[in-house]
Amino acid sequence: MRKLDVAILGATGAVGQRFIQLLEDHPWFRVNEVAGSHRSAGKQYVDAAHWILNGNPPARVAGLRVKGLDDDFDSPLVFSALPKEAALSREMELAAAGHVVCTNASANRMLEDVPLLLPEVNADHIGLVDIQRRQRGWTSGALIANSNCTVMPVVMALKPLLTYGLSRLHLVSEQAVSGAGYPGVSSMDMIDNIIPFVPGDEQKMESESRKMLGYFNGEGIDKLDVVVSATCTRVPVLDGHLVNISVGLDEGPALSSILDDWTTWQAADPVLSLPSAPDHPLQYLDQIDRPQPRRDREAGGGMMTSIGRLRECPILGYKFAALSHNTVRGAAGCSIINAELMAVLGYIEGFRVREAAEAT
Amino acid sequence: MRKLDVAILGATGAVGQRFIQLLEDHPWFRVNEVAGSHRSAGKQYVDAAHWILNGNPPARVAGLRVKGLDDDFDSPLVFSALPKEAALSREMELAAAGHVVCTNASANRMLEDVPLLLPEVNADHIGLVDIQRRQRGWTSGALIANSNCTVMPVVMALKPLLTYGLSRLHLVSEQAVSGAGYPGVSSMDMIDNIIPFVPGDEQKMESESRKMLGYFNGEGIDKLDVVVSATCTRVPVLDGHLVNISVGLDEGPALSSILDDWTTWQAADPVLSLPSAPDHPLQYLDQIDRPQPRRDREAGGGMMTSIGRLRECPILGYKFAALSHNTVRGAAGCSIINAELMAVLGYIEGFRVREAAEAT
Amino acid sequence: MRKLDVAILGATGAVGQRFIQLLEDHPWFRVNEVAGSHRSAGKQYVDAAHWILNGNPPARVAGLRVKGLDDDFDSPLVFSALPKEAALSREMELAAAGHVVCTNASANRMLEDVPLLLPEVNADHIGLVDIQRRQRGWTSGALIANSNCTVMPVVMALKPLLTYGLSRLHLVSEQAVSGAGYPGVSSMDMIDNIIPFVPGDEQKMESESRKMLGYFNGEGIDKLDVVVSATCTRVPVLDGHLVNISVGLDEGPALSSILDDWTTWQAADPVLSLPSAPDHPLQYLDQIDRPQPRRDREAGGGMMTSIGRLRECPILGYKFAALSHNTVRGAAGCSIINAELMAVLGYIEGFRVREAAEAT
Amino acid sequence: MRKLDVAILGATGAVGQRFIQLLEDHPWFRVNEVAGSHRSAGKQYVDAAHWILNGNPPARVAGLRVKGLDDDFDSPLVFSALPKEAALSREMELAAAGHVVCTNASANRMLEDVPLLLPEVNADHIGLVDIQRRQRGWTSGALIANSNCTVMPVVMALKPLLTYGLSRLHLVSEQAVSGAGYPGVSSMDMIDNIIPFVPGDEQKMESESRKMLGYFNGEGIDKLDVVVSATCTRVPVLDGHLVNISVGLDEGPALSSILDDWTTWQAADPVLSLPSAPDHPLQYLDQIDRPQPRRDREAGGGMMTSIGRLRECPILGYKFAALSHNTVRGAAGCSIINAELMAVLGYIEGFRVREAAEAT
Repeated sequence: MRKLDVAILGATGAVGQRFIQLLEDHPWFRVNEVAGSHRSAGKQYVDAAHWILNGNPPARVAGLRVKGLDDDFDSPLVFSALPKEAALSREMELAAAGHVVCTNASANRMLEDVPLLLPEVNADHIGLVDIQRRQRGWTSGALIANSNCTVMPVVMALKPLLTYGLSRLHLVSEQAVSGAGYPGVSSMDMIDNIIPFVPGDEQKMESESRKMLGYFNGEGIDKLDVVVSATCTRVPVLDGHLVNISVGLDEGPALSSILDDWTTWQAADPVLSLPSAPDHPLQYLDQIDRPQPRRDREAGGGMMTSIGRLRECPILGYKFAALSHNTVRGAAGCSIINAELMAVLGYIEGFRVREAAEAT
Repeated sequence: MRKLDVAILGATGAVGQRFIQLLEDHPWFRVNEVAGSHRSAGKQYVDAAHWILNGNPPARVAGLRVKGLDDDFDSPLVFSALPKEAALSREMELAAAGHVVCTNASANRMLEDVPLLLPEVNADHIGLVDIQRRQRGWTSGALIANSNCTVMPVVMALKPLLTYGLSRLHLVSEQAVSGAGYPGVSSMDMIDNIIPFVPGDEQKMESESRKMLGYFNGEGIDKLDVVVSATCTRVPVLDGHLVNISVGLDEGPALSSILDDWTTWQAADPVLSLPSAPDHPLQYLDQIDRPQPRRDREAGGGMMTSIGRLRECPILGYKFAALSHNTVRGAAGCSIINAELMAVLGYIEGFRVREAAEAT
Repeated sequence: MRKLDVAILGATGAVGQRFIQLLEDHPWFRVNEVAGSHRSAGKQYVDAAHWILNGNPPARVAGLRVKGLDDDFDSPLVFSALPKEAALSREMELAAAGHVVCTNASANRMLEDVPLLLPEVNADHIGLVDIQRRQRGWTSGALIANSNCTVMPVVMALKPLLTYGLSRLHLVSEQAVSGAGYPGVSSMDMIDNIIPFVPGDEQKMESESRKMLGYFNGEGIDKLDVVVSATCTRVPVLDGHLVNISVGLDEGPALSSILDDWTTWQAADPVLSLPSAPDHPLQYLDQIDRPQPRRDREAGGGMMTSIGRLRECPILGYKFAALSHNTVRGAAGCSIINAELMAVLGYIEGFRVREAAEAT
Repeated sequence: MRKLDVAILGATGAVGQRFIQLLEDHPWFRVNEVAGSHRSAGKQYVDAAHWILNGNPPARVAGLRVKGLDDDFDSPLVFSALPKEAALSREMELAAAGHVVCTNASANRMLEDVPLLLPEVNADHIGLVDIQRRQRGWTSGALIANSNCTVMPVVMALKPLLTYGLSRLHLVSEQAVSGAGYPGVSSMDMIDNIIPFVPGDEQKMESESRKMLGYFNGEGIDKLDVVVSATCTRVPVLDGHLVNISVGLDEGPALSSILDDWTTWQAADPVLSLPSAPDHPLQYLDQIDRPQPRRDREAGGGMMTSIGRLRECPILGYKFAALSHNTVRGAAGCSIINAELMAVLGYIEGFRVREAAEAT
């Protein structure tokens, strides 16, 4: 019994490299195909990619020949780290051709039949895949998205609080440069500086959070009815997005109840048992000056969200800070855990997780 | 006719150095005495101070002998850059001894008879000096404070909007390391990192803004009745505090009205004519990614506040970003313009501004 | 009597912007034309340029319409901040058409009849312009280059030591990111990192220093016979290149003699009187931890070179560190002072400096 | 069969924390005692230490009570991360009292009977322990030092080249801030800046490298006869010291021979089998812009040295760059591998490695 072959689209970019790094020793999946733009196609991966993560690309992937984005792919599972424009139609074509496509691109996120999946938060949204297949006439193919990397820690931190009635949400982010890809933000803009604007992210904070926290009614998502105000800023940090969150909760719980909710929260099976799932999705840090991007982004292998500074907000009720690793849990790692959930629920044709697990 | 002699307390520290730099070519004031802790006292300034600003200390000050903080001072005007504990009683003693003390320390800011002065915003608060002198039996002495360096851009940006009725104020700051003095924040905390907490500043944001925007009723300050929620964070920036501001305005003005209010706002005489006063206290930047600390902190010689990103806030009504140079307008420069106002209004005994001005 | 009109090629880039900033209040020159690539041509400058220096572009230039690089220019004096490939033939064409072209590009630096001019060091190399005009049949046109921005502080520091007999020169640079232009170096490469390689600069250090320190024999330059070994590295600094220099001097002077040579060195007239010339080209800093890029790059308006840490080298004889502002003295500022020298020596047809000077 | 108890002196500091982190899952050693200054003594470790590494201190150590430095210790093995002054006599006392003391402090490094141990380079220097015990009358006690963190990558890279005859060595370092401890270098000195001086390190580069590369003659170390010239600079990097090395080799080997020597070099047993020993002490990186601190410091768990940019030096013969993690291989990790060598060679009384190994 062998691992499932996967293809990575946009494999030479910042998120593509993170996919390759995170999949290096994955128990179920194996990188079999890498694809990039016409500048990269035809080259060996090690020559096509300017590797920007630590160390060097894993040896096996380094030797793969980069395919073109329009080539056919053999791998049943496809991870997409494509830019928005490239993703728009190509992801759909591949899903229509029978591939399960787990995408980090924003292009198709807000389509009504595409789940914006964060397994601990909304595993049941995967039901949209059945709708999607029925409506589009697909059998084995599917398209599953993960959210914007700044929305992610917000949604994770709020999920356990939804029962209190979430009315208003005020967000000010301090985002790492890796969120803009490579080369992305010029060092001439970031040394001794911050930029009080991140193109497109404020809108995504407002729309994607409502979808992710929404209710799957069997046919679609009823978006959460919450007023969101977001400000997104860029800071000279490599990885790790921190969001300063003020929130109104209708029931007015005690701070201690919120702390309890966060620290006791665990995903249920099958999510809890997924290879990439941390034991606890959240950790609360007692130190008054945490979470900090550099010190906390690696928690749970980059898959945990760290929270700190819970206190009362004189205007909205409550405030705190939440932090996630934007290119792990907020991007490649989220696509991977989404694919794991697809696999364990039998959505990937011909791949039985039990045997894969036994083989590891 | 000669310039007024001034003494600088805490002259070897980060803010003390900024006082010396800003006073180098001041038309009215001349640094005559510098004072520091027992470690510095007795040394030449150039030997006592580890100069951390650009270049080297001005030649004339470099040769001054550093006095002890408990020594007597000849200078009628005293600028204090003392740490809070050292400032608490020493500033009062010097004011009682007849000195006009303009302080950047937080120790005495919230005393009822001490003005928290920002001339363009609340020049009339200087009337507290008369109360102070009457109540304390001082004749020539006085104690005038300037605000916390993060409160300052907020108060400056809101002053022209007060007529709309300011109800709620939500603040998230991104503050430069120089706000913590020298050596202050360790480089091991700031490389590739942010710190989501600045000791003491959130409380100051809430209390000092209400006092500065308050009404001088002839006997004291009626604080502004506004609910303030502040979060203060530290970012790897040398100088320049940026605050992300969301605000509720009762009258609901058009965005264009607010822009007009900001760009047309000028201080009236005598404030407008003070040597350190910029022509306009505020500038609004049209670019969507401004203000930025490194690019905008030097506006108006560091004495202007830069605003950008005005837009609607779905929760509070309006939001925007404001930025000031924290050690110029937010610290030493503010003490200096406060002293200029004291001088021009005749509060500094024996110093007539007109002749000083003619002498320049 | 009016100022001389100048055109700036590559006006929207990092060095182009520095030209505009430095020329804002120039006593002799006035920016009259700005030119950029086809993406910029036709737009107003303020819309074409993403202004990356502090503040905003000067108002008068902001309103200029950007010309194409292949357009004709009216200005007798042309400053070029073009990329190497664009510079190669276009600078020659403009010089042939009668313009005095002062270029910062590397394309034509090493041509035998093009002076690599640094006025305090080799003002007499301007004699190559006569050779150039004679050989190429030009009358009013000329092409004058300035050196690579990392070579510049080395040459400046060594010039006063040439009489001791310079035999060997070992250089390790720590270079600012602005040396790579904008956007240049990605912030993902520079946060918490250094890069031990700068493309092309090591070769330039070795070849350009020998030309600049060479002897003009009336017909050409006899390059200095010195063995140079250069290593160039990139560090997370905005502006200011620091070079760690070890040098062999045949005569073995005392350290104190070298200090004397540096601190007493002044350019002779007419160089000393040029508007952009600092009183002293060099300053020696006594503090053991200087020069530092951020604290010393602005010395003399960015036109001085700062030196520190002179001591014995057990291998080569002497070692020290030298620092210059790479986009001021090492780029735009050097082109400007070169043009000033051309002007004062009468190489710019129809422009008489005396009257310009009187008009200021 | 249980692990060997170890004590850590200076456990709350930057290097002390790195000891605790690296020992968390050590197969042979177990942190049993932590000691700090009088400010820390008596507190629980988690309260005494401001943890500056990623995440939080390991749970078991977090609960230990911090001992005073003058207390008695039960642990046979003591790691010292003390400041120089505190280390000077206390380390000797503990060794005299029977403890094996592996120190990172510089205080006793250059004593004639103290080995400056880097196992892959000079494992035989451990013979000095026999001299030490004989001369000082110690039976179970010993004092073993590791080198300055900047010397370390130099010595590691040169060891395989010693057979060519090492004559001259020119070094320019670019050092991380963690080398100065915590809080160490102020962020006000490091943002947008470098410092061209590191107190004390240039002398250590010159003296320690000669001792480490020296020959153990059975009674003492014959230092290597090589002329060393070192310049040490500080850069805004968290961890990882890079050294630009120029070297003269008498035999003039081909570049390819040097590459072979580096890449084939492996330590012999027992060093190769030590738990903290990497398979290869060195890795050569082919990319022209490597090694880089952030991307290469973690190679081999921070225990490998990365080399790149080998090329000819017109002055000395050869040049290249070498990089090591300064607080892992250059500090705590080196003390640990030194202790492992002591253990496996039977220098730690009552501790038999084989059984410890089997127990893991």
